[in-house]
Amino acid sequence: MALKATGIIVEYNPFHNGHLYHAAQAKKRTEADIVIAVMSGNFLQRGEPAFIHKWARAEMALHNGVDLVFELPYAFATAHAPTFAEGAIRILDAARCSTFCFGSEDGDIAPFQRSLHLLQQSGGQYEQAVKDAVGRGLSYPKALNEAYLAVATTVPVDEPLADLSKPNNILGFHYMEAAQAIGSTMQAITIPRIIAQYHDDAIPGNQIASATGIRKAFFQSDGLQAVNAFIPETTRDILLDWQADQRQFGSWSTLYPYLRYTILREGPDQLKMIADITEGIENLFIRAATTHSTFEHFMEEVKSKRYTWTRIQRMLTHIFTGFTYSMRQLMPAPSYLRLLGMTAAGQRYLNETKKRMKLPLISKAAASTDPSLQMDIHASNMYALGIGNNQIGSDYDRHPIIIR
Amino acid sequence: MALKATGIIVEYNPFHNGHLYHAAQAKKRTEADIVIAVMSGNFLQRGEPAFIHKWARAEMALHNGVDLVFELPYAFATAHAPTFAEGAIRILDAARCSTFCFGSEDGDIAPFQRSLHLLQQSGGQYEQAVKDAVGRGLSYPKALNEAYLAVATTVPVDEPLADLSKPNNILGFHYMEAAQAIGSTMQAITIPRIIAQYHDDAIPGNQIASATGIRKAFFQSDGLQAVNAFIPETTRDILLDWQADQRQFGSWSTLYPYLRYTILREGPDQLKMIADITEGIENLFIRAATTHSTFEHFMEEVKSKRYTWTRIQRMLTHIFTGFTYSMRQLMPAPSYLRLLGMTAAGQRYLNETKKRMKLPLISKAAASTDPSLQMDIHASNMYALGIGNNQIGSDYDRHPIIIR
Repeated sequence: MALKATGIIVEYNPFHNGHLYHAAQAKKRTEADIVIAVMSGNFLQRGEPAFIHKWARAEMALHNGVDLVFELPYAFATAHAPTFAEGAIRILDAARCSTFCFGSEDGDIAPFQRSLHLLQQSGGQYEQAVKDAVGRGLSYPKALNEAYLAVATTVPVDEPLADLSKPNNILGFHYMEAAQAIGSTMQAITIPRIIAQYHDDAIPGNQIASATGIRKAFFQSDGLQAVNAFIPETTRDILLDWQADQRQFGSWSTLYPYLRYTILREGPDQLKMIADITEGIENLFIRAATTHSTFEHFMEEVKSKRYTWTRIQRMLTHIFTGFTYSMRQLMPAPSYLRLLGMTAAGQRYLNETKKRMKLPLISKAAASTDPSLQMDIHASNMYALGIGNNQIGSDYDRHPIIIR
Repeated sequence: MALKATGIIVEYNPFHNGHLYHAAQAKKRTEADIVIAVMSGNFLQRGEPAFIHKWARAEMALHNGVDLVFELPYAFATAHAPTFAEGAIRILDAARCSTFCFGSEDGDIAPFQRSLHLLQQSGGQYEQAVKDAVGRGLSYPKALNEAYLAVATTVPVDEPLADLSKPNNILGFHYMEAAQAIGSTMQAITIPRIIAQYHDDAIPGNQIASATGIRKAFFQSDGLQAVNAFIPETTRDILLDWQADQRQFGSWSTLYPYLRYTILREGPDQLKMIADITEGIENLFIRAATTHSTFEHFMEEVKSKRYTWTRIQRMLTHIFTGFTYSMRQLMPAPSYLRLLGMTAAGQRYLNETKKRMKLPLISKAAASTDPSLQMDIHASNMYALGIGNNQIGSDYDRHPIIIR
């Protein structure tokens, strides 16, 4: 019988005990033989540079229950939730996963299915309500939730819907929506999130903390000492190696001098061509960059009710990497499966499934001229320069990590 | 009787004893009441960031025999010799100098006048010979000199011509050419350069050394100690203050991380729009930036017989500041006199002459929206970010320096 794979959608920034639990649960509940993770590269969905680069994060995963890691291309990894979700689901579907598995607040799939059905039945009413709310000046996530609640009241439902005010539930919902949209046969499974909420700080003694909390504790107190309890030993070793080699961890504070220089070098006409830049916000960026020498103060000036922090950070990510609207048009859907690493079991699955995969498998970037792949390599170079790593270009001819 | 001014064209990178001598001689030989210097801003004619910014350099000059310092706008300060010369001469002419004064190898004006006359008589033969030589792959200065020598042999001359293989003579020649082209009534005077040649190193015990030699000695040995003998006391004090405040001096090594990041962020299509970029050199830049983490190694890869080092550096300056071909088209000639500083005598001259000046006098940049002035401010901001000075934007509302 063919090996069975379950797919998960991850960032691992960095990999921690909660991720370990999630990968193990995904495998167990779906009775899969292997776990495939589709993972963001060096820039993440919330519009931030990764704490450490994708190769180190893939290695952490392969030591801790994940068998294959594919890179979610830049254009999707740094997009808003619906596009992020569609990119990730297309990759898991192309890799022939039987199931995909996401964390949610309650761990019950039925409310998601009902919500999905409800919105599909709403006949445009939902989309119109979103549009109206955005028109009234609401941020996109707030508008979505308001429209969703409005639609929910118009249809008699005696069973609970998914709570789409929670970040993880929203992503899960978009995964299901995307799977249905592309006609995937993958079955959706959800696992309850345990203990830590997304933004929770790392609490000593509590063995599971969010990645955000771990990074915060790391930067604010005495580094790895403060987060040891929340991460697997291999994560710790990889972070120690990174610290010794690179000296700097990725953050907007680290990259800000380059971002600031670029905002001021470009000027409004060129900034307008950058993906996601809308409605004169380029002038606000230029004003704030002229005044402020820290990222923190810059963000204080540019944040507003109209734009979520995340949305602004995504614009800044695209400014930093030079990703334009016209470049994005060249990559409407994932066009390859870029393998970052594999275990022995992952390799067996690849050998068995390779020919049936729906997208070409890329083990070495140098072999392809796909514009999306070029952008992934480019983003890696920009990340390396931003954190002061002079050894750029290595992404181009690097082989996948193999963990046996 | 009206005050009489002589004009000099300078960079003062930094101001040294040779400059002191030149300013004093200019005043003496022309019997002028005041000396007006038109000075490059933060980027120089050889395509380099200035060692220290223009305000500090203007201050050095005002303490040492110069009475008014006007900024040569970026578009001219960073241009090849003929354009640089025309911009500078237009400013001195607009400021109503009676004479202008330049250093040359021999200090005799007659050979320059003969050379100028000769080339004007050549009836296009000279221009054609330059074009042919460039077509054969010679660098522009080499082509000029070859064409000049060829024309020189076709006309019987029993008196010596200027030696246009020497950098200072070439500049002087272009100054005279420009003055004639704009119909200026300023009289040209030349002063012999003494002791140090342009590229000479600073030799301890020798009281005059070139600015290049002084910078080199400064960077290679124990800083100011090594160059004390070659600079006025006020120059030393200003350099000491700069060192204490800024910690970094301007050089391509300092700015290279930003230059490299920008070359790689932009890509070939955007680099092609940058002023002076020609014939696919953008691809060479991208290749070299990908590989090399120091400016020295970068230049080793990109230098060639076809392009002088200086010409390549000018391209890099424009990449660094984001100065495009289309921006340059907006500033065909100097359109203002930007005052960086004055002595009491300079101020008297200004009061007396202001109304007769041929271009508007600008004492505070905030008062104008001239695109060339915007570029000067922009270049100052880029320079500040490049050397790690977070206090940008100060160029915008700074008042001229007044030395009494």
